[in-house]
Amino acid sequence: MTKEFAIGVDLGGTKIYSLVADVDGQVLGDDRRLTLPEDGTDAVVQRIVESARVALEQAGRSMADMVGFGISTPGPCDPERGVITEAPNLFWTDVPLVTLVRAQVGIPTLLENDAAAAAYGELRYGAGQGKRHLVYVTLGTGIGGGIIIDGRIYRGASGAAGEVGHMVLVPDGPRCNCGGRGCLEALSSGTAIERDARLAVDEGRSAKMGELAAGHGLTAELVLEAARQGDKVAREIIEQAGRYLGLGLIGLLNIFNPEALILGGGLIGLGELYLEPALTTTNEGGFDQVLEDVTISTAALGGSKAGALGASALALEHHPR
Amino acid sequence: MTKEFAIGVDLGGTKIYSLVADVDGQVLGDDRRLTLPEDGTDAVVQRIVESARVALEQAGRSMADMVGFGISTPGPCDPERGVITEAPNLFWTDVPLVTLVRAQVGIPTLLENDAAAAAYGELRYGAGQGKRHLVYVTLGTGIGGGIIIDGRIYRGASGAAGEVGHMVLVPDGPRCNCGGRGCLEALSSGTAIERDARLAVDEGRSAKMGELAAGHGLTAELVLEAARQGDKVAREIIEQAGRYLGLGLIGLLNIFNPEALILGGGLIGLGELYLEPALTTTNEGGFDQVLEDVTISTAALGGSKAGALGASALALEHHPR
Repeated sequence: MTKEFAIGVDLGGTKIYSLVADVDGQVLGDDRRLTLPEDGTDAVVQRIVESARVALEQAGRSMADMVGFGISTPGPCDPERGVITEAPNLFWTDVPLVTLVRAQVGIPTLLENDAAAAAYGELRYGAGQGKRHLVYVTLGTGIGGGIIIDGRIYRGASGAAGEVGHMVLVPDGPRCNCGGRGCLEALSSGTAIERDARLAVDEGRSAKMGELAAGHGLTAELVLEAARQGDKVAREIIEQAGRYLGLGLIGLLNIFNPEALILGGGLIGLGELYLEPALTTTNEGGFDQVLEDVTISTAALGGSKAGALGASALALEHHPR
Repeated sequence: MTKEFAIGVDLGGTKIYSLVADVDGQVLGDDRRLTLPEDGTDAVVQRIVESARVALEQAGRSMADMVGFGISTPGPCDPERGVITEAPNLFWTDVPLVTLVRAQVGIPTLLENDAAAAAYGELRYGAGQGKRHLVYVTLGTGIGGGIIIDGRIYRGASGAAGEVGHMVLVPDGPRCNCGGRGCLEALSSGTAIERDARLAVDEGRSAKMGELAAGHGLTAELVLEAARQGDKVAREIIEQAGRYLGLGLIGLLNIFNPEALILGGGLIGLGELYLEPALTTTNEGGFDQVLEDVTISTAALGGSKAGALGASALALEHHPR
């Protein structure tokens, strides 16, 4: 039996990352380029296909050698119909991405929600190898999740499952992007950290952050930098976001009793300052048995690679010939 | 092919309910008696077996006609080993119930956590018929849950999944039985309602509840009675518990995107005063798509019957001959 290969693409609002991989997650070639969604749907589809072709060239393979073409996509989608329902950062609504890409590449194509694809990538090739039940939480501008039950992606009734960022943690808390109040995302995301930092600067509580932010926007990385330079307000903002994350994780652990809990996304870059209060809070609050059963770790593959490898794994498994 | 039957038993801290049912959930005979756990493990096992024999007699069947013997059990258990890990209201720790019962009845025996068994009963014969993904929330002294994924009970790594009562909703909220603070159970359970009512009486804020409770304990039913008699404090206590429940349900809906959400347990008896604020809160806060996908309803079978029928269904399906 010859070895089988597939293309995996992580489509983000900013970047496209494509790779050619085998069933063991070995990457034979890859490509990274900008998405530039302002150019319109056709141009983005063209870039996805071009990016995949460059990865193929690097791998010394042709499209005809591929078992399938998997795409990890941002925001709500319908994997069964192959449609991106809504992707605000691409300005897309109801885009039949699978049909559009398949028309160009001529091989079986599928798409999957990015958090679910990343969860699957971590399950197959990363921090979740060998586990059956896994919860993946992506911590970035927003907070999302991918859920693996019995080794398979759990999508729920219409593919909307896994929105772990929208558990309420503080009923009268800050407004959330979802329209609610005090969701995990409104307390522990990059957006939450930036909002609290902006408030501290506006109220004159942190000269350091004001200074660092002058001329740029206030980002979570910048809050971290201020904390590293000794700014106590910046430090407390990140720690508080971490503690809320820990409370949210308690709920997830008690609900899922998973074998693995994997934390991914850009905020992992905040390191111990964010993760230590989170894990301390979780370890203090979860049930003993549930804490014993779970391995909590950060993602092993990184966001784009996890999504792309999850997508290539799905393509290999769903289109075996 | 002859029709197949099984015994289903709901074992509670107070009562044992046994039935003989077929695969369609038709009950041919049943029996109800007290558990009296203070008599010890052997006596309770004996009562389970006796109760089943009375149900069999009523059904005009013998033990040998039964495909299996399913038991719905309170608290954490290990269905794979057939052991009740911990059941505080039975004073049991690590009781190998399956072995003990099987030794008496001589037919295949299994056990299942009561919330999971009730969820399964509702799935097969009650409010969840025809659904694939279902979340069942049991509202009583405590708050627990049963999760059905793709038509099967989801147990997690060690059978501890479904503890939906221990999502944190108010970080600095009241102490919870689990040792944490502000869990859903500490805000919306019968225990929470009774605690708030006791406080109101002690602080002289509700003469009505004090009057009704004189000589008895303060129960959730009594708080309801006070509210019906016009006591505004009692009314607000129940409504507040309902609103918190609604916030907890938002999290569950956004995480699971289920096809059905079923509310069971004794607190359902509080009716609209409790459920209306819950559902209003949920409908205001959940994602549109998720709310569209789900049918929210109260349990159709009632707690003991749901658990017993879930257990008989599992016995029929796991021991088909």
